[in-house]
Amino acid sequence: MLIVMESAATEEQIRGVIDRIQALGLRAHPIPGAERTAIGITGNHGPLDPAEFEILSGVQQAIRVTKPYKLVSREVKASGSVIQVGGRPVGGPRLTIIAGPCAVETEDRTLAIARQVAAAGADLFRAGAFKPRTSPYSFQGLGLEGLRILARVRRETGLPIVTEAVDEESMAMVEDHADAVQIGARNMQNFSLLKRAGKSKLPVFLKRGLSATLDEFLMAAEYIVSEGNYQVFLCERGVRTFADHSRNTLDLAIVPSVKHLSHLPILVDPSHGTGRRDKVIPLARAAIAVGADGVMVEVHDDPSRALSDGPQAILPDQFAALVGDIRAMAGLVGRLHD
Amino acid sequence: MLIVMESAATEEQIRGVIDRIQALGLRAHPIPGAERTAIGITGNHGPLDPAEFEILSGVQQAIRVTKPYKLVSREVKASGSVIQVGGRPVGGPRLTIIAGPCAVETEDRTLAIARQVAAAGADLFRAGAFKPRTSPYSFQGLGLEGLRILARVRRETGLPIVTEAVDEESMAMVEDHADAVQIGARNMQNFSLLKRAGKSKLPVFLKRGLSATLDEFLMAAEYIVSEGNYQVFLCERGVRTFADHSRNTLDLAIVPSVKHLSHLPILVDPSHGTGRRDKVIPLARAAIAVGADGVMVEVHDDPSRALSDGPQAILPDQFAALVGDIRAMAGLVGRLHD
Amino acid sequence: MLIVMESAATEEQIRGVIDRIQALGLRAHPIPGAERTAIGITGNHGPLDPAEFEILSGVQQAIRVTKPYKLVSREVKASGSVIQVGGRPVGGPRLTIIAGPCAVETEDRTLAIARQVAAAGADLFRAGAFKPRTSPYSFQGLGLEGLRILARVRRETGLPIVTEAVDEESMAMVEDHADAVQIGARNMQNFSLLKRAGKSKLPVFLKRGLSATLDEFLMAAEYIVSEGNYQVFLCERGVRTFADHSRNTLDLAIVPSVKHLSHLPILVDPSHGTGRRDKVIPLARAAIAVGADGVMVEVHDDPSRALSDGPQAILPDQFAALVGDIRAMAGLVGRLHD
Amino acid sequence: MLIVMESAATEEQIRGVIDRIQALGLRAHPIPGAERTAIGITGNHGPLDPAEFEILSGVQQAIRVTKPYKLVSREVKASGSVIQVGGRPVGGPRLTIIAGPCAVETEDRTLAIARQVAAAGADLFRAGAFKPRTSPYSFQGLGLEGLRILARVRRETGLPIVTEAVDEESMAMVEDHADAVQIGARNMQNFSLLKRAGKSKLPVFLKRGLSATLDEFLMAAEYIVSEGNYQVFLCERGVRTFADHSRNTLDLAIVPSVKHLSHLPILVDPSHGTGRRDKVIPLARAAIAVGADGVMVEVHDDPSRALSDGPQAILPDQFAALVGDIRAMAGLVGRLHD
Repeated sequence: MLIVMESAATEEQIRGVIDRIQALGLRAHPIPGAERTAIGITGNHGPLDPAEFEILSGVQQAIRVTKPYKLVSREVKASGSVIQVGGRPVGGPRLTIIAGPCAVETEDRTLAIARQVAAAGADLFRAGAFKPRTSPYSFQGLGLEGLRILARVRRETGLPIVTEAVDEESMAMVEDHADAVQIGARNMQNFSLLKRAGKSKLPVFLKRGLSATLDEFLMAAEYIVSEGNYQVFLCERGVRTFADHSRNTLDLAIVPSVKHLSHLPILVDPSHGTGRRDKVIPLARAAIAVGADGVMVEVHDDPSRALSDGPQAILPDQFAALVGDIRAMAGLVGRLHD
Repeated sequence: MLIVMESAATEEQIRGVIDRIQALGLRAHPIPGAERTAIGITGNHGPLDPAEFEILSGVQQAIRVTKPYKLVSREVKASGSVIQVGGRPVGGPRLTIIAGPCAVETEDRTLAIARQVAAAGADLFRAGAFKPRTSPYSFQGLGLEGLRILARVRRETGLPIVTEAVDEESMAMVEDHADAVQIGARNMQNFSLLKRAGKSKLPVFLKRGLSATLDEFLMAAEYIVSEGNYQVFLCERGVRTFADHSRNTLDLAIVPSVKHLSHLPILVDPSHGTGRRDKVIPLARAAIAVGADGVMVEVHDDPSRALSDGPQAILPDQFAALVGDIRAMAGLVGRLHD
Repeated sequence: MLIVMESAATEEQIRGVIDRIQALGLRAHPIPGAERTAIGITGNHGPLDPAEFEILSGVQQAIRVTKPYKLVSREVKASGSVIQVGGRPVGGPRLTIIAGPCAVETEDRTLAIARQVAAAGADLFRAGAFKPRTSPYSFQGLGLEGLRILARVRRETGLPIVTEAVDEESMAMVEDHADAVQIGARNMQNFSLLKRAGKSKLPVFLKRGLSATLDEFLMAAEYIVSEGNYQVFLCERGVRTFADHSRNTLDLAIVPSVKHLSHLPILVDPSHGTGRRDKVIPLARAAIAVGADGVMVEVHDDPSRALSDGPQAILPDQFAALVGDIRAMAGLVGRLHD
Repeated sequence: MLIVMESAATEEQIRGVIDRIQALGLRAHPIPGAERTAIGITGNHGPLDPAEFEILSGVQQAIRVTKPYKLVSREVKASGSVIQVGGRPVGGPRLTIIAGPCAVETEDRTLAIARQVAAAGADLFRAGAFKPRTSPYSFQGLGLEGLRILARVRRETGLPIVTEAVDEESMAMVEDHADAVQIGARNMQNFSLLKRAGKSKLPVFLKRGLSATLDEFLMAAEYIVSEGNYQVFLCERGVRTFADHSRNTLDLAIVPSVKHLSHLPILVDPSHGTGRRDKVIPLARAAIAVGADGVMVEVHDDPSRALSDGPQAILPDQFAALVGDIRAMAGLVGRLHD
């Protein structure tokens, strides 16, 4: 159920509706909007009666939400959300370009790459300090030391930082050092981590799981939002299929599907989505053309020596060319970038 | 093995090489190029010795082809092929837009749609007279009567016709009435039909099977070319995965993969690739952005009454808008359309 | 719609119902049963009124069939069908074991293998004379010469022959030489071939396509039966997934699903289903345990020299041991062999 | 690298090898065997020289391990592992049957079901106190109260308890109350949770992820073992494919694959693997036939009122019949049950 308040509703009226919801043993989720406030209700086991809420003071309408996801649904919020990451908007008319190496390796290298992607036009910097790796014997990331390097990158380049957390402990450290926390594909249904992210002050960048359906993807976002953190943006990064010409199969059709059903921004990661350098740029262009809110690409200045995922990283000058392509294409899809 | 002739090689020298190949019990496939002729060799069970051919008069070089597909490989022909369909090029700098209804229904309706897509800028007209349908009780197409309607469409609009054949019998009829024959996804590994298409005078439009790998797709094209018909152009139309937000999962990464390995043009069919009208236009744009040689889209002026696949057909004015998008985008990917 | 005749209905009454159906422009499919005759109706575009048929003489009941497949449905025929292949039953209490090499190679080798599998307890002999191969340059089978070898195998061993047809031409030759015609996975939706098989006098062994859903599989069988050939038996042979530890993923759950929805027998092919010799025997056992009507396994006496699919063929003595396992297991699932 | 000690090697010699490994900055994993002790080495970045270890006192041989997984590999331990769960063996000649409801609901119901499955022959009891659910609004399990009920079930029935943990906090609680901890499919690559399980005193029951390859599955087990907990047993529970006739596609071919590559026991869960009651029993039989070390099935005495996964639970008397089937089948695959 979604309670839509009148545009002139007072704080007191809003408070009254929330109190009533809580008195019924339910949970209220106030969603402030540009014109009016809406209040989502969750926790009911059967259907609620709209009349029960429409009689309250300041309420314009009570609407049944028909999807299993509630708070992330377009039914609840018709306009697309814009998430602020370190002062930069994600969603809205401006495209977002996230770039950086797969992992933080050394301070010098990380800074050098960051300066290049900043100069080329990146909006946010990415690099993993905590790396979920298939093998326990692979490089697992620099941990806290990596986060400190990232904090320095931000000071030096002004680029806000997006980096992955893999558990409670790393989440707390990421919160201390970064501007947005990434939940990776392998943790998309790590519900404890999602709930923890829902209590974070940071925006959350949620990547689609390797075999997640659209419903499961939006429900994972709902886990975060239902805990009170509305700052969620999504990422398509390829799904697992029989196809062997790319590492994963990038499923661009999910972009208009998400746009249709949800108000959350969605970006595309063609680096993990293809796993091969020569496909990153064409698929990044395709992602913009299909209507994504931006892209995340891995950039490394010496990919053959990268400690992880070297084959999918593009070079800094390839990245600069890609930014040019994106800017040229932005106008054609009603977007802009600088 | 590929024999590359000197650019000044005479007809007689070329004939001499072919004779030698045949004398060895092998098959020769002369491939005339702008500057020089190459001759593919197939039919050998083990590796051949380049020296055996390099000593022949007029031969510049004999190259081992490392892929299982030979004649469709970029190793054999470095420049992209351009296929002529009713006088219109497919491949090369100009993008190709194929449009029309799923099936030929009535002459009036087919003509009306054809006039609209011609006016909007379509290059080729599509509509099925032979429809492979999951159920034996579904509309199976008008057959020969449908082909006659298509021939009239060509006379009236000037649009060359691409239409599907499903067996020997329909292939012969399509050859009499159309400009290119389509082999559908369900027949991609109907090897008898592929061989028959390889003996056709018509260009062949080969669609990827629902679970075909890249290698299988190129090998299916090789079946056609190995019979002597070099006029083949390919189509990505979505593969079958667990994802349920679109009818198939459109695998755009196969476009740069095909471009890398083969000289054949490849188009994208976002109508079958998504199965839903609201996704056709964004995915068509993405197809151009990823580097496809064109798109094929289903257009119907009354989709709710279409006899097949209505939910994925776009309306004529949506099509006109899409042509505008494609033209605007063409320059950004080094292509053009009008 | 299915018309169930009274058990005492006369030929004349049956004829009367068929005439009425045809007078309505529909198609009648009489299905004689042990106790009574049923008549399937196809060709209607909307629902039919049961009353229209229940008033006819000799009619007990008219039942709406709710599935897209009609004639292969359990709704139409509650008891499992038993198909006769060269005098041997497929379906019913007795399990069926089909064995033989992938392809007919030489007469000596084929006969030698046939004698061994006959001695070990095989019911039917398999070997391909027409081989659908991914590459046009691979061994494509001996064709007519292969069929002649198979006919000799039958004379010498008494084993009925199951072998694949890939088009009209090979179908006619198979009809002259074999006891059942196989439609392979790649042709499961080659609807022209299915219709042709529906006009054959031979029983048809239909293999599931690489990415066929259950509905598509049963609809493919419906294509055959709707042309009048009720002698169809099915085969699960693995589907294509991301899993790389076997060539295909054998989907044994389809066996009880088919049993629930259809009266057609279903066997399992663990050779193609796994592609690896060491998995054939465990999966063959599992196929019997899950309730399949039998198995088809590839047997070769020198797999390392087989012209196709050597890695998945088991040796004759492994086959003999497998027959022993199947016989031991048969009683546990309410079946028998011998 | 795996160091195989002489069978007469002393504790002191073993200690000496471990000291040497640690002095090189590497990690030693002593693996006591019936006849001799082996010591796995991990943590090396490049290949090690066998000679370096073969000169040490008491060492028979140093063997390079060629697989990415080391400690779970058959190369390291040729005989199958037997895991003790509350005094009951998993692995070895005796089959293991795990049964119980999806979730702990009430104490009465849980006890009633437990008594029935104990009487029918279950070896271990399963029921979730922490339920990972797609929706944040679905029943998430009783938590600690559920574990207390499970502890009571063990006291009353003698059945050891297997139950899922989803994070650090629930893991600690499960360790206090249960006999084995389950890591669910959605957490198969939650590497923090795997490492935590590797430090647990409890055996770990690791379920395959929805799109996990064989390598990823064994690497997940390696994460646990590399932390020192060798008590791991695996579970195939179906993977996600296009097939829609069952909830997941049960991939029984992974059982012989795991047996070939790893010494860990592997069970099969046909309840999640099919999602439908009428398929659970045939697939459970197939699992035994294919060589699994046992099955886990969901049993509920009133499935239509179950709080989760009711459609896949079988009834207590169906379970009793299944135990009878398994016992009858055990001898045929060289196993036993009671």
